[in-house]
Amino acid sequence: MIDFTFQNSTKIYFGRTALDNLAGEVRRYGTRVLLVYGGGSIKCIGLYDKVMDILRGENAQVWEISGVLPNPRLGLVEKGVAICKENDIQLVLAVGGGSAIDTAKAIANGACYDGHPWDLFEGKGSNDRVLPLGTIVTLSAAGSEMSNSSVITRESDMCKRGRNTPFNLPKFSILNPEYTFTLPPFHTACGIVDIMAHMMERYFAREENVELTDRMTEAALVTVINNAPIVMEKPDDYDARAEIMWAGALAHNNLFSTGRTGDWASHKLEHELSALYDIAHGAGLAIIFPAWMKYVLEKNGEKKLSQFARRVMQVPENFGDDRATALEGIARLEKFYRSIGLTTTLHENGIGESDIPRMAERAIALGGGSLGFFVKLGVPDAEAIYRLAL
Amino acid sequence: MIDFTFQNSTKIYFGRTALDNLAGEVRRYGTRVLLVYGGGSIKCIGLYDKVMDILRGENAQVWEISGVLPNPRLGLVEKGVAICKENDIQLVLAVGGGSAIDTAKAIANGACYDGHPWDLFEGKGSNDRVLPLGTIVTLSAAGSEMSNSSVITRESDMCKRGRNTPFNLPKFSILNPEYTFTLPPFHTACGIVDIMAHMMERYFAREENVELTDRMTEAALVTVINNAPIVMEKPDDYDARAEIMWAGALAHNNLFSTGRTGDWASHKLEHELSALYDIAHGAGLAIIFPAWMKYVLEKNGEKKLSQFARRVMQVPENFGDDRATALEGIARLEKFYRSIGLTTTLHENGIGESDIPRMAERAIALGGGSLGFFVKLGVPDAEAIYRLAL
Repeated sequence: MIDFTFQNSTKIYFGRTALDNLAGEVRRYGTRVLLVYGGGSIKCIGLYDKVMDILRGENAQVWEISGVLPNPRLGLVEKGVAICKENDIQLVLAVGGGSAIDTAKAIANGACYDGHPWDLFEGKGSNDRVLPLGTIVTLSAAGSEMSNSSVITRESDMCKRGRNTPFNLPKFSILNPEYTFTLPPFHTACGIVDIMAHMMERYFAREENVELTDRMTEAALVTVINNAPIVMEKPDDYDARAEIMWAGALAHNNLFSTGRTGDWASHKLEHELSALYDIAHGAGLAIIFPAWMKYVLEKNGEKKLSQFARRVMQVPENFGDDRATALEGIARLEKFYRSIGLTTTLHENGIGESDIPRMAERAIALGGGSLGFFVKLGVPDAEAIYRLAL
Repeated sequence: MIDFTFQNSTKIYFGRTALDNLAGEVRRYGTRVLLVYGGGSIKCIGLYDKVMDILRGENAQVWEISGVLPNPRLGLVEKGVAICKENDIQLVLAVGGGSAIDTAKAIANGACYDGHPWDLFEGKGSNDRVLPLGTIVTLSAAGSEMSNSSVITRESDMCKRGRNTPFNLPKFSILNPEYTFTLPPFHTACGIVDIMAHMMERYFAREENVELTDRMTEAALVTVINNAPIVMEKPDDYDARAEIMWAGALAHNNLFSTGRTGDWASHKLEHELSALYDIAHGAGLAIIFPAWMKYVLEKNGEKKLSQFARRVMQVPENFGDDRATALEGIARLEKFYRSIGLTTTLHENGIGESDIPRMAERAIALGGGSLGFFVKLGVPDAEAIYRLAL
């Protein structure tokens, strides 16, 4: 176990009545509210109207930023920051998934910074305060509702950057599993993969003696795996949606990082699939993570991968040696991904051998020359992993 | 799963270098510091000198409240509140275990309240702010370093009251497992039982569909059970002490309460042993908890108790029916308590049949007529549990 600092101050309101707490939070932080959301889905499920009713009940003045898309763009952030500065906004309220929340985070920070909001993502400037930020979650996936991170893409060169700061922690997040009932199966499945990836990136670490963190992460992974088939079969199963929603928030709040250094190479290798071939993030992770596992298994990875196989994928203790156990665990993970309707190979997505060098080079370049901590990857390693994913 | 609100804002500095963060926190909150601690142990391990050096390095003015005892008393709280009010204290810093921390919490709240600090424990008054509170932990047990609770005893009538409020959350807690190396084995063992009890009181709930919370709690219980024999055998095993210390903080920070209603009857039944026979809290819990389990098993408790037996006490799946599995789990828990040097019966502590009616009556009266949620207990139930503990 390595020394660590842990703090997560976000207030979570969870359950069918969670939205009842919004009025009190508006009274607490202020009635000049900027609402940030995507498109029509929050209107279809009636959530937009409910939120507006509550805000009106508090005599709030509401400004809106809508049209947030996946891989949220800087343009909307600039627009939101301008609205905040011109109108003395007191509360930024995101309604949606990770994209709406990440946009709202960038706006809440940018509104308290004199320069251009992109400076904050490039490390060229810093803010010493932030507007209060609240979230109402409609998609279990990114975990942004309880995380300190925000990822924004600049349209001019499609440069994608993340920024981690305690200022990104929402003051409150409202999690009602009912808001996820109408998600299309593909989005539900991608969210499940993303949640599990947030846990696994933290889990595959070289530090020894992290038993508590390991076991809690395993507990959360098993819970997601057990509840995934239920929500795929019955999208309005409240209890299963609730397990996945709470797991999704905890997955990225850094509890599962305590005492160790996460890997995060698979996330970066996946980014290239999303960037170049417009594959959804979760769908890309279902392709990359098993390939990454197969590769690092041969780089002194047997111990942790066989632990994952036994404790998470329920491979019998006496299955064989560590390597055979680990391989069976990876096979079961792939089978799980396919069981929720996702693909696990590049070929199935029209990506072939010839695309690999470019992806590997870009991914490693963006990592500043290497990726990962469990195994430090260079370009040949990245190429080998993409090849294992063919 | 029931709807819940969860927030825990305490900043945890964990590890060998954790104390390095104290100076920054003093700069942040203020240099007029009230130090709250027990007796000589923090001087014996050199911690007092280290803390004073850091405070001096920040040119802090330090006031001291020392002599905190187990079941901390109101008298020291009154004294501390007076010092805070007279000297414009800016930071209350507890160094020790739960008693020092609970005293510091009561002082930090009382200093921001016009009336007598006991009013706050009786619900006769409330404060709307609190002095910043920091802790440096030397005993893994009470979990007060990350909890919202404080328990104080009024000497005049030995009335013991707890108060739960977000104002009790420390701003920061410094956890260095090395500070627990020199604890006597009995204190270490009592701390382990207390930590496990904080998890088990939350675990034994009637709510269904709390898989994530259940599994994380089981993960933490298994971790404590695995590391307990190591610290009993080798008190300066850093890694095992670290697992228990982090588990002890998480045990009481309410993460393991999410989605369900804890029981807490065993804690209340134990309080009588501590109050009437001066048995240490953890030692008393080792007697009461297995007896409580045996009793509630027969009150529709098979399902959760057999789950505990299988997932925490590693009773084989095919051990028999749920009841037999549960009983084997309880037997293994008793064996575990004895293995770390504790007793599990009242007789071993000189308490007999004739003492039971008084204890049962007092415990239920203090509970306002009943105790517990997993099974609601009245006087006859409490008597039966004490009898099972004979």
